[in-house]
Amino acid sequence: MSEKILYIFLLLMSSSSALLAQNERRDDAFLIKDIYDEALSKGEAYDWLRVLTKDVGPRLAGSPGAAAAVTYMRQIIDTLGFDTVYLQPCIAPRWERGEPAVGRIVNNDLIGSQDIRVIALGNSVGTGEAGVTAEIIEVTSLDTLEQLGPEVLSGKIVFFNRPMDPRQLNTFAAYSGAVDQRVFGANEAGKYGAVAALVRSMTPGLDDVPHTGTMAYSEGARRIPGLALSTNDADKLSALLKKGSVRVHLKSQCRNLPPVETYNVIAEVTGSTYPDEIILVGGHLDSWDIGEGAHDDGSGCVQSMQVWPLLQALDYRPQRTLRCVLFMNEENGLAGGRAYWDASNTAGEFHLMAMESDRGGFSPRGFTAEATEEVFADYMRKLTTWLPLVEPYGLSFSSGGSGADIGGLKSQGGLLMGLQPDTQRYFDYHHTSADRLEAVNQRELLLGAAAMTSLVYLIDKYGLR
Amino acid sequence: MSEKILYIFLLLMSSSSALLAQNERRDDAFLIKDIYDEALSKGEAYDWLRVLTKDVGPRLAGSPGAAAAVTYMRQIIDTLGFDTVYLQPCIAPRWERGEPAVGRIVNNDLIGSQDIRVIALGNSVGTGEAGVTAEIIEVTSLDTLEQLGPEVLSGKIVFFNRPMDPRQLNTFAAYSGAVDQRVFGANEAGKYGAVAALVRSMTPGLDDVPHTGTMAYSEGARRIPGLALSTNDADKLSALLKKGSVRVHLKSQCRNLPPVETYNVIAEVTGSTYPDEIILVGGHLDSWDIGEGAHDDGSGCVQSMQVWPLLQALDYRPQRTLRCVLFMNEENGLAGGRAYWDASNTAGEFHLMAMESDRGGFSPRGFTAEATEEVFADYMRKLTTWLPLVEPYGLSFSSGGSGADIGGLKSQGGLLMGLQPDTQRYFDYHHTSADRLEAVNQRELLLGAAAMTSLVYLIDKYGLR
Repeated sequence: MSEKILYIFLLLMSSSSALLAQNERRDDAFLIKDIYDEALSKGEAYDWLRVLTKDVGPRLAGSPGAAAAVTYMRQIIDTLGFDTVYLQPCIAPRWERGEPAVGRIVNNDLIGSQDIRVIALGNSVGTGEAGVTAEIIEVTSLDTLEQLGPEVLSGKIVFFNRPMDPRQLNTFAAYSGAVDQRVFGANEAGKYGAVAALVRSMTPGLDDVPHTGTMAYSEGARRIPGLALSTNDADKLSALLKKGSVRVHLKSQCRNLPPVETYNVIAEVTGSTYPDEIILVGGHLDSWDIGEGAHDDGSGCVQSMQVWPLLQALDYRPQRTLRCVLFMNEENGLAGGRAYWDASNTAGEFHLMAMESDRGGFSPRGFTAEATEEVFADYMRKLTTWLPLVEPYGLSFSSGGSGADIGGLKSQGGLLMGLQPDTQRYFDYHHTSADRLEAVNQRELLLGAAAMTSLVYLIDKYGLR
Repeated sequence: MSEKILYIFLLLMSSSSALLAQNERRDDAFLIKDIYDEALSKGEAYDWLRVLTKDVGPRLAGSPGAAAAVTYMRQIIDTLGFDTVYLQPCIAPRWERGEPAVGRIVNNDLIGSQDIRVIALGNSVGTGEAGVTAEIIEVTSLDTLEQLGPEVLSGKIVFFNRPMDPRQLNTFAAYSGAVDQRVFGANEAGKYGAVAALVRSMTPGLDDVPHTGTMAYSEGARRIPGLALSTNDADKLSALLKKGSVRVHLKSQCRNLPPVETYNVIAEVTGSTYPDEIILVGGHLDSWDIGEGAHDDGSGCVQSMQVWPLLQALDYRPQRTLRCVLFMNEENGLAGGRAYWDASNTAGEFHLMAMESDRGGFSPRGFTAEATEEVFADYMRKLTTWLPLVEPYGLSFSSGGSGADIGGLKSQGGLLMGLQPDTQRYFDYHHTSADRLEAVNQRELLLGAAAMTSLVYLIDKYGLR
């Protein structure tokens, strides 16, 4: 075909809807490329994360750090060109760790006395001034407790030592398979007269850093202290137990104070055409009281904050209402998430899509998606049509949980999503003093923000039906 | 269809080649799963990397560290069940850095005198005891030098300040677009009478760590010193130059000593059926003289060493000859690579596939592949049939360069490949003191080894036609 004939052919074709769709697809590809270019060359998420991790630092809900996080992040968000920025109150529990916990193997026949690296679990009661000193009973599942019964467990420290399965490709799956020990271990062991629960840290690797995290007591339960110990020390303790009985001394000072009012930080751009269809991006503003909460979940906060500035830089004005929410108290109570979805459900709002980023600021691999049964297949079909646009960025869509803070929006019938980054390194840092800014790579963080922005753009432009 | 009829149907079908192929595909999927399970639960690559980075440390070719690396890694390889382990001699240059280089802005009108963080480039001559002190001329490309000419450049220090393009998704593409300044900058500036070249470090980010790397003088060129400075200091220097002239003092002590004999470490398992078809996996044993060469390229070495132990653990005996090669002197001369391919080509060997891992021990994303034009399409077609087996592990195949040490094998007509990990963090560490064991995640490293092993298994079992 000569160039001239080709030109005429294209001219004739240009009225066809197929070519229009093709042109639109090409425009989308260019716009997504622009989003990535803008994010990687001018994205500010890492600078905001520096403020949150270094100027604010640890920010457990109810603490002065959390209050500072609300103030500092709101100040930044106020400069980002949203139509509205406001605080949504919620009542968070206030748990304090006190002095760092102490763990020590005492008067052992083989090794004498030696410190072990422990940390109190969130929500745990303290041991009291004297601490507890008792014989260790090692188990690898909660079920074992019933078999052992109070004859064996009464007066003992129960040592939960089932490791995260390293063979799971997705470390979050391995976490799900082990975290019952941390959440329920103390509560269950307390029923059989144990005096404390000591839990192997939730990480698939071997290191010296104990990992905290939330635990829970059931209503009216006998409350015994729960602590985690480092995986290296868990292996050491287990090896020692194979040679004879081991006594351990534990001391922690944690306590609960009266709940305090705190806030979700919310920023909004009203949609030009469908203002009642909300597209939400969010992370949680609180962190554990150790480390800097850089991956968990400072990253998710600043990535969510980055979405609107990126769209603005490309002169894109959303048809639907775009809302950025920094949730409070995800780690130990979910007060912020509940306050948000209670208010939203009561007001009869409709979140067409809500996405949480709470799996760390690592290289993005795609998105998980969930919805009610009636609509899920339709939404997935729509997402799948966009695969050619996101695959060049290493992204895909899969069925899976979205995020703790947005779960209560599911009944609205919209799509709930989670940013899915590479999971290999997450549990090197999770809930430890090592979760610091230095553990976050600026490019990986910005790529996650670009991925979120690209999907927000597509959903805003085309809807989900 | 009732279950009984389905059963009979399947029974009848079971003789068909389609079902056989399907069963075989299922067996392959199980075996690859076993490879990953074994790697993630029992892989030793990280322990070997600890020896190489902590017990040996820096190991520039020709240095005592490189000799120690040969000895230590050979000792480990001798325990891994290979049929043969041997050293292949090669002659490497011996370049020494001497005391760390000094850089200082001197007597500036605005800021007085201030240190800047610099490092001598590999192969560079030193400045001499007195150092050089001269005015800075900033350029962003080698081409600019000719326009400026000796009138402007004579007696000056040329400052090459074109950054790596942060918008490139693949940081190696950004590296390729900037590294000409480091490799040829001093050589070109020397032609116009400059007294030294100062090059912006090869990293897309901003930090305080200068990155070394190789540079080259052409035959008979006037040799002036080449140094790199940190990206933060490059930005500072550039900003200062916008306000007026800047003089800088540089001092480096590098020198060249007589070349020394050193070695590639080679280990081999003879193929049971096609012993003359070689499948090679390798990395380079040498590193720069700073840091620990953990990502570059300790990771590639220990991943390559891991392949045969993983296959052995699953009782897989290769049909083709499997060879693991740790190459010497990739960083500043390629003496090991040349010695290997010269010997191999002379002996008329045939490498059906040779794969190098030299892009860091990060989460694997796939493999690059190259070959001569006559065979490339066929090989890619074969690889593509295996996509369903490797995609569950996040892997794909793409056309692209393999590795510097195996390039000379291309004429044998086999397939050359490179392990392709996530590239985002590589240049945070590349050629700096920060390239230490702690920068490598054990799971990411082992996943790379499992990916390599899976592909070696498929190619060994099915060939490439």
